[in-house]
Amino acid sequence: MAFETKATIANFGGKLLKLQHQSSSTGTPMDVNLFLPPAAVYGSKVPVLIYLSGLTCTPQNCTEKGFFQAHAARKNIALVWPDTSPRGANLPGETDSWDFGRVSITGHSMGGHGALTLYLKNPGKYRSVSAFAPIANPSQCPWGEKAFSGYLGAEDREAWKKHDATELVKGWAGKDIKALIDVGIGDNFYKQGQLLPENFDKAVKEAGVKGLELRYQPDYDHSYFFMSTFAGDHVEHAAKYLFA
Amino acid sequence: MAFETKATIANFGGKLLKLQHQSSSTGTPMDVNLFLPPAAVYGSKVPVLIYLSGLTCTPQNCTEKGFFQAHAARKNIALVWPDTSPRGANLPGETDSWDFGRVSITGHSMGGHGALTLYLKNPGKYRSVSAFAPIANPSQCPWGEKAFSGYLGAEDREAWKKHDATELVKGWAGKDIKALIDVGIGDNFYKQGQLLPENFDKAVKEAGVKGLELRYQPDYDHSYFFMSTFAGDHVEHAAKYLFA
Repeated sequence: MAFETKATIANFGGKLLKLQHQSSSTGTPMDVNLFLPPAAVYGSKVPVLIYLSGLTCTPQNCTEKGFFQAHAARKNIALVWPDTSPRGANLPGETDSWDFGRVSITGHSMGGHGALTLYLKNPGKYRSVSAFAPIANPSQCPWGEKAFSGYLGAEDREAWKKHDATELVKGWAGKDIKALIDVGIGDNFYKQGQLLPENFDKAVKEAGVKGLELRYQPDYDHSYFFMSTFAGDHVEHAAKYLFA
Repeated sequence: MAFETKATIANFGGKLLKLQHQSSSTGTPMDVNLFLPPAAVYGSKVPVLIYLSGLTCTPQNCTEKGFFQAHAARKNIALVWPDTSPRGANLPGETDSWDFGRVSITGHSMGGHGALTLYLKNPGKYRSVSAFAPIANPSQCPWGEKAFSGYLGAEDREAWKKHDATELVKGWAGKDIKALIDVGIGDNFYKQGQLLPENFDKAVKEAGVKGLELRYQPDYDHSYFFMSTFAGDHVEHAAKYLFA
């Protein structure tokens, strides 16, 4: 996969690269942003944290507003923000052409669910997982029902389970899930029952899985103001496992 | 001046308020954002740092991308982002209805020049000043010549001097200017001679004024990636004088 560098921007002592590649999955050009911490600019091999954005967001939103770079520069971690539309799964970290040693994954909303399912479906591939306000049990919420009916058909609800983090975690073979999830109590999507982190939490407990830290943050909403507030904690979480 | 609260958003343990008031200066509704650090939410009186944005930017841009809040929450300082268009100077910090003890000012580009001129024209009013990539000598650059010709007339260049930070600093009566200025060497506007921080620096030195810290930052451009990188230093600069 060849990447074209559209822009190189100085940021927190490192470099922010705006890249584009021709995706074989979507048949379209896809944007992806990459933050190289200072050491990587000078040639060091560094681990990477992939961030999957929510619906309607391009790679630019979190790059501009999420403020992961300050923390990633400090912890010596590269960041990758792929585009998650139109069909997602264009993860540069999955290819061999990237000189990164270890990978963790995080995401927001739909992308938070994407991070959880990629983690649960690929044991050992990612060192840790975290999510901001994930749609944690899409089979049971209006957004998920609409999406799964559209992609998989309304009838075959068994097929939905392969793409639902709360269902997937029931079959998790590992002992420690190494997961951090933050949900804002002021988040309207949480209040409307679109996120259902309590279902995920219950499934984790019933499956005897350890290592989920689920935090309910008073007042916080679904915005980048929520994410930028806790971005440091999520980078620290990834760093703990990337450098273990 | 009555303010209507359009939104209240949790952010870094404090509150971000999106406010609107009917401006007597512009005759239009004007937006202003206010960040209250945690202590202020619980009733403490806190000092304030006013941020003036550059051309084309609304109060939202820096609130979302500048990342001053993380640092202001830590230093216990309120932030005010007024709208600087259409005609600027709608500074809530100037009124008596705000329960803030001390005020400092900063800004970006045109707003950086605004911060410098407000500071220089009102000795003692602001505890300190800082600027990101200010248009530091508008009489001598294409942008300033266009703006001053439009507002003040092309002929009366003496009148321009009252609105030019480099001219104003020649008459600065104080000894210590308490100013921090950051300019990115990769900033195209700097390269094109629109910013001219070297003229401001020369005028400061020739006037025998002390206390200017002018930093040229390698590679950095004119964007919010530049500002968010150094926002912490500018909040620290304001804090040093606000809490002196």
